[in-house]
Amino acid sequence: MDTSLIAGVCRLFHTYVALGESWPMTKERAYFEAITLKEHGHLCPAHVPEVYHFDRAMSLIGMRYLEPPHIILRKGLIAGIEYPLLAEHISEYMARTLSSHHFFTVQPRSTKRAVAEFCGNVELCRLTEQVVFSDPYKVSQYNHWTSPYLDGDAEAVREDNTLKLEVAELKSMFCERAQALIHGDLHTGSVMVTHDSTQVIDPEFAFYGPMGYDVGAFVGNLILAFFAQDGHADPQNDRKAYKDWILRTIDETWNLFHKKFTALWDKHKDGSGEAYLPEIYNNPQLQLLVKQKYMKDLFHDTLGFGAAKMIRRIVGVAHVEDFESITDAGYRADCERRALDFAKMLLKERRKFQGIADVISAIQKVHT
Amino acid sequence: MDTSLIAGVCRLFHTYVALGESWPMTKERAYFEAITLKEHGHLCPAHVPEVYHFDRAMSLIGMRYLEPPHIILRKGLIAGIEYPLLAEHISEYMARTLSSHHFFTVQPRSTKRAVAEFCGNVELCRLTEQVVFSDPYKVSQYNHWTSPYLDGDAEAVREDNTLKLEVAELKSMFCERAQALIHGDLHTGSVMVTHDSTQVIDPEFAFYGPMGYDVGAFVGNLILAFFAQDGHADPQNDRKAYKDWILRTIDETWNLFHKKFTALWDKHKDGSGEAYLPEIYNNPQLQLLVKQKYMKDLFHDTLGFGAAKMIRRIVGVAHVEDFESITDAGYRADCERRALDFAKMLLKERRKFQGIADVISAIQKVHT
Repeated sequence: MDTSLIAGVCRLFHTYVALGESWPMTKERAYFEAITLKEHGHLCPAHVPEVYHFDRAMSLIGMRYLEPPHIILRKGLIAGIEYPLLAEHISEYMARTLSSHHFFTVQPRSTKRAVAEFCGNVELCRLTEQVVFSDPYKVSQYNHWTSPYLDGDAEAVREDNTLKLEVAELKSMFCERAQALIHGDLHTGSVMVTHDSTQVIDPEFAFYGPMGYDVGAFVGNLILAFFAQDGHADPQNDRKAYKDWILRTIDETWNLFHKKFTALWDKHKDGSGEAYLPEIYNNPQLQLLVKQKYMKDLFHDTLGFGAAKMIRRIVGVAHVEDFESITDAGYRADCERRALDFAKMLLKERRKFQGIADVISAIQKVHT
Repeated sequence: MDTSLIAGVCRLFHTYVALGESWPMTKERAYFEAITLKEHGHLCPAHVPEVYHFDRAMSLIGMRYLEPPHIILRKGLIAGIEYPLLAEHISEYMARTLSSHHFFTVQPRSTKRAVAEFCGNVELCRLTEQVVFSDPYKVSQYNHWTSPYLDGDAEAVREDNTLKLEVAELKSMFCERAQALIHGDLHTGSVMVTHDSTQVIDPEFAFYGPMGYDVGAFVGNLILAFFAQDGHADPQNDRKAYKDWILRTIDETWNLFHKKFTALWDKHKDGSGEAYLPEIYNNPQLQLLVKQKYMKDLFHDTLGFGAAKMIRRIVGVAHVEDFESITDAGYRADCERRALDFAKMLLKERRKFQGIADVISAIQKVHT
């Protein structure tokens, strides 16, 4: 490639992650981000910026410059901008990246090697374990919330046995289940967008983990964006239409992901994969049953992880600008409480939801 | 240690595993067996033979010689010998080895490193995937059964959609879930016994996998031994009392494992582990709920994997001497069919079983 024609940018990794100087991190995370960008870029070039150069010693990635008007999706959601292709694009990214390492397209041999390599990204996995699955459920110096308004709500999270019982299961799955090479931090701040472009960035938390963690991160952060909208309404724009667009986007994201993921499964079912051998899964009824069971479990994992990601953004260490940018603390707390209560219900009762439409209805019920 | 005082034996690994020359295997499995013997021996020295020397280049393990009257447990079960301490010993081995790598006693950092290393044992994992979770459910040159008696039964296994649906879930768990450093082949041929000694050998299939695979392998093979007893009865010994002893041993194995595993959990709950932080799981009711949920899931995994291990021993490539030593083919087939039908039911309906006592009753119902 003729680099003189390329608009490039250098991403230089420092010792500290976004959480600040209390969280020194190995620069090795640059390596895991670089190889994940390359792997995911190979699988889904349309939605992952190209890596031109990686210098491990320098912890430096030379990659495509995402030119204006690309902005961070979260900022677009706060500004009330509709992205008509977002669901189409992000579902394409998730279906391609998550399905490829599913055993129906990849040989266990190469997968096991890759799993082994990504076990090296242990520090960032441990950070996630702490800030997502542990700190919000205990007294921690790192936790904060809109006080004093949510003091009782934060305490209620720490004292909810049923909630903590379910979180234990999700944490075990996060730590133990090497299902696919996941992005590991797929919230709306890890996606850059324009009206017709969607680019997934910052996979420094990538490892072999449960697929539902990626899908849940994205869906959960859209739900957070939804509950924050009332805080961004003004006399010129009550945000009602925009809230409807967010709900449609949540609905389309899951349904398109489901459609594309299962289509890739069908496409590869006679391929080199070993999980669902055509000689065993040899009749249409069985193939349907297997897919339905698999996607139902993935859906419930998605809701569980998505809810956990919502909770940690309200009573944990790192909050989201969707809420933080609401200046009236009392009003912000009302929005956050609605999101928190919904997330607690979703995490505890996720297995009762048959499909994404049920989730949309539940959000609407909470909100009206 | 003064080696002149030690009765030792050398285990030299060849290119082929028990399945014969159709299955060439890397000698590297000697390395995984050696480090697993050392690790499990460190955790449970009473029931794992000591390794004196390992030569990786030679694929040679110098280890304790298990002197007579030690014999392979499977042969003792065929001979109708009772081992009064078997359940006590094997439950101790399983509780100590499986709990130690559970996150409540081991730091994720070291666990991740170990998981990465054992990903190298990919060939033997793939062999298990094929012979346990795939071949019995499809037409395979390797499958065989007591023909023609079980021709219809073998075909029924290959055409049972519900069974294959459940096997897919177990195979995914086997491939994806790095829960503990498991033995990987804990059937009654991997245990040597005397009246008062129980020694676990041959962990060449060891890797980070689901705990239920080990517990299930042992329990499933005891159930096979039970269903084979009628084939070993003679006018002098109808084996009725011995069948009762096997059922008592199954019952005690699970109940003692449950008791010891949860006791180790309690012992380490304030320790260095990170899965169940005492600041989160901070009240007796919650601690009980978490343990009950965890052990219930482990019990159902155990029944599922145990049933899968039974099925593969009747219609798959490698059979067990318990049945093979029954010379009358028609009579052997009757015993095998009872075991196969029970295993199919157990695999499909495992979640309905509340405890091991339900399993014992179900075995007795089938049998009378």
